Amino acid sequence: MTNKAKSVGVIGLGSMGMGAAKSCINAGLDVYGFDLNPKALEELSLAGAKAVSSSALDFAEQLDAVLVLVVNAKQVNAVLFDSGLAAALKPQTAVMVSATISAEDAKAIHQKLSQYQLLMLDAPVSGGAAKAATGDMTVMASGSLEAFEKLQPVLDATAAKVYNIGEEIGLGATVKIIHQLLAGVHIAAGAEAMALAARANIPLDLMYDVVTNAAGNSWMFENRMKHVVDGDYSPKSMVDIFVKDLNLVADTAKELKFPLPLSSTALNMFLSASNAGFGQEDDSAVIKIFDGINLPGVEK
Amino acid sequence: MTNKAKSVGVIGLGSMGMGAAKSCINAGLDVYGFDLNPKALEELSLAGAKAVSSSALDFAEQLDAVLVLVVNAKQVNAVLFDSGLAAALKPQTAVMVSATISAEDAKAIHQKLSQYQLLMLDAPVSGGAAKAATGDMTVMASGSLEAFEKLQPVLDATAAKVYNIGEEIGLGATVKIIHQLLAGVHIAAGAEAMALAARANIPLDLMYDVVTNAAGNSWMFENRMKHVVDGDYSPKSMVDIFVKDLNLVADTAKELKFPLPLSSTALNMFLSASNAGFGQEDDSAVIKIFDGINLPGVEK
Repeated sequence: MTNKAKSVGVIGLGSMGMGAAKSCINAGLDVYGFDLNPKALEELSLAGAKAVSSSALDFAEQLDAVLVLVVNAKQVNAVLFDSGLAAALKPQTAVMVSATISAEDAKAIHQKLSQYQLLMLDAPVSGGAAKAATGDMTVMASGSLEAFEKLQPVLDATAAKVYNIGEEIGLGATVKIIHQLLAGVHIAAGAEAMALAARANIPLDLMYDVVTNAAGNSWMFENRMKHVVDGDYSPKSMVDIFVKDLNLVADTAKELKFPLPLSSTALNMFLSASNAGFGQEDDSAVIKIFDGINLPGVEK
Repeated sequence: MTNKAKSVGVIGLGSMGMGAAKSCINAGLDVYGFDLNPKALEELSLAGAKAVSSSALDFAEQLDAVLVLVVNAKQVNAVLFDSGLAAALKPQTAVMVSATISAEDAKAIHQKLSQYQLLMLDAPVSGGAAKAATGDMTVMASGSLEAFEKLQPVLDATAAKVYNIGEEIGLGATVKIIHQLLAGVHIAAGAEAMALAARANIPLDLMYDVVTNAAGNSWMFENRMKHVVDGDYSPKSMVDIFVKDLNLVADTAKELKFPLPLSSTALNMFLSASNAGFGQEDDSAVIKIFDGINLPGVEK
């Protein structure tokens, strides 16, 4: 008998979870989808899910593995423990926790899962909705060899690249948080640069073109400052997500007693944007904290 | 008779100037090379320069164009005006000023060149020594159509991409400075992220690998944090260059009365590194401002 999972329950069918769940279907796994949004359930059902439900408890016995793709630690705890799911899962079921959470939260969740003899992979993901849809996410994971082995079919189905950071739960979370430090600072830096360009009467499309063809480029600049050039702040990923993630960075720094001059500045910029009413807009809307400039599609 | 330059004097044969001068030779232009370093003169002479000298004044009459690739505005003024060169050049000679300088300095230089009926292109470059060597620099230029036309053979020979920002002298300088804002913040952010990873006991080569395969990547992270992973701080580009360039960013912000929270923080990080004795090391040595961590190749 193989240890590898044949069935997986995906909890959280947002843009990432939906893509991951469909990738698992495409890879031949038995997929169960769970979300509170009936439209998402219908979409996954049509895509070939074995079953869908608003509660994972309904199918706990059928699952070899669980992939949790919700927003934060509070939601992870709600879907795994408050719901009663952990108690209902078969012993040795492997739970892949892919929310962006702190190392401390990851360790606490691991401890609780262990009480039910459940395996855990601390496995945050990166790549956005597009990579999730094609099964090409980047996964930065830590956990036991057992957990890696059992989840290998899920990792194969959803990820182009899997980093094994080590056995210690919390390392995966920390790597993701350090990654988010860079992502957040790069968006804020892009906004600062484009705001200065606007103030200096440099055409923003030209500034964008120069940077994306030179050494000042970043993945985030290229992706997010396009929204500024187009004046389109409809949320692909929201300002408030980076308020959350840069707060996780700050928590990590506090825990390690480590100074982070740029990240703390970037957090304040996203906080200012959220406080000014832009929390639900695209994260590129952090540029709206700058006054005295004209931006495409923004009325003053 | 064509207006395009057939001969060009390249002043400043450092890594960028040497590459540009050789690219001009390869393109069939008559190239005159000027530098205080006799080794650089010998290298360019062997590469096929028409003539080389420590003083451009010796060949002023032969030049249709001048490409100035020195370090700062003070040096630009020294080689063009203090030396007597501007007075000796033929009227309508086109001077391409490619140092990274402020818009104000560019305008002042333009005014002085105009007094001698010389054309000017405000034309900072990007791409590093490698791109200069292959004639693939990025040029962000502003100036008159006449200046663009006369310098076209030089631009064709040295640049893969030429941005025409407009006619107003100073726009080229400003675009370059905004580009440097991003480059400097990205190096400092990379250092902050890698320092935090070191503190959290994440292997730095793995952290580097994750970031360079995910959305947190930047051109500078990929290029400079490799030096940190390798523990090699031999200067490709020095900490003190970013002290200079981020001070130009600060001057620009002051002139435009514009707040730059991230750039001013990054400037302080490079200043701290320079003040601690790392000014002549590779700019990635900004990571050495962080205490309480172990870095490859760095003894504490």
